[in-house]
Amino acid sequence: MKNSPNSASGSVSLSERLCRGDLFASPCPSRMVLKHVCSQWGLLILIALQGKKVMRFAELRKKLGGVSEKMLAQSLQALASDGFLLRKSYPVVPPHVEYSLTEMGEEIADRVAQLTDWIECNLPRVLEAQLSIQETADK
Amino acid sequence: MKNSPNSASGSVSLSERLCRGDLFASPCPSRMVLKHVCSQWGLLILIALQGKKVMRFAELRKKLGGVSEKMLAQSLQALASDGFLLRKSYPVVPPHVEYSLTEMGEEIADRVAQLTDWIECNLPRVLEAQLSIQETADK
Repeated sequence: MKNSPNSASGSVSLSERLCRGDLFASPCPSRMVLKHVCSQWGLLILIALQGKKVMRFAELRKKLGGVSEKMLAQSLQALASDGFLLRKSYPVVPPHVEYSLTEMGEEIADRVAQLTDWIECNLPRVLEAQLSIQETADK
Repeated sequence: MKNSPNSASGSVSLSERLCRGDLFASPCPSRMVLKHVCSQWGLLILIALQGKKVMRFAELRKKLGGVSEKMLAQSLQALASDGFLLRKSYPVVPPHVEYSLTEMGEEIADRVAQLTDWIECNLPRVLEAQLSIQETADK
């Protein structure tokens, strides 16, 4: 976290004082945001809900192949605590809870999607590179 | 991993057969690429070297605040095995090893930088959201 030139003043708001984060600095709180967003399940939740989709816990669990209930609940909780995810609970029996992205969630999901799209589209290139590197190492 | 319509034919190359990855499918090899790229240190290595930079191990270790030698070595090895990173070793004493990104590494680093830039620039918004959510929870 780098402080803006105003940081000595006590009258400025938090957003004015904190100019921007610095991911290379170990104590910067941006590191924790990166950790939540870039966990495997965090990333997949963001792209599953991208585009104003609304999903229930069971739907998300089905969509995210291989996720456990515990890991899904923890990842949803982390994204909600950062303000990326809305959790709407209906007072019915059995409980009905819906998840969707906030405006900030949609913004970050757009960036995540560009990264995950690259990985999905270029997987054949990566697999060929892996094979060629492995063959060179085996010689 | 989804197969292209050509997948039944034995004469097509790997890249033709594997149309694109599917990150939502648990057994797809794209999951492992995502894991290497989106580990905390993997992400920071990619943005440290972005823009055809060349760095030595000790320089990277200094740049990535808080990384251990072991974790840095493992993260460099993972990115190299996927074809994102070049390791150039000079036969001198003491050993001199340089790291840089491949063409694929630069491509993915561009996407990673868009995500990390968003996090750094919007950190004040995220911190305010965290505070407001915490206050609501405490009431």
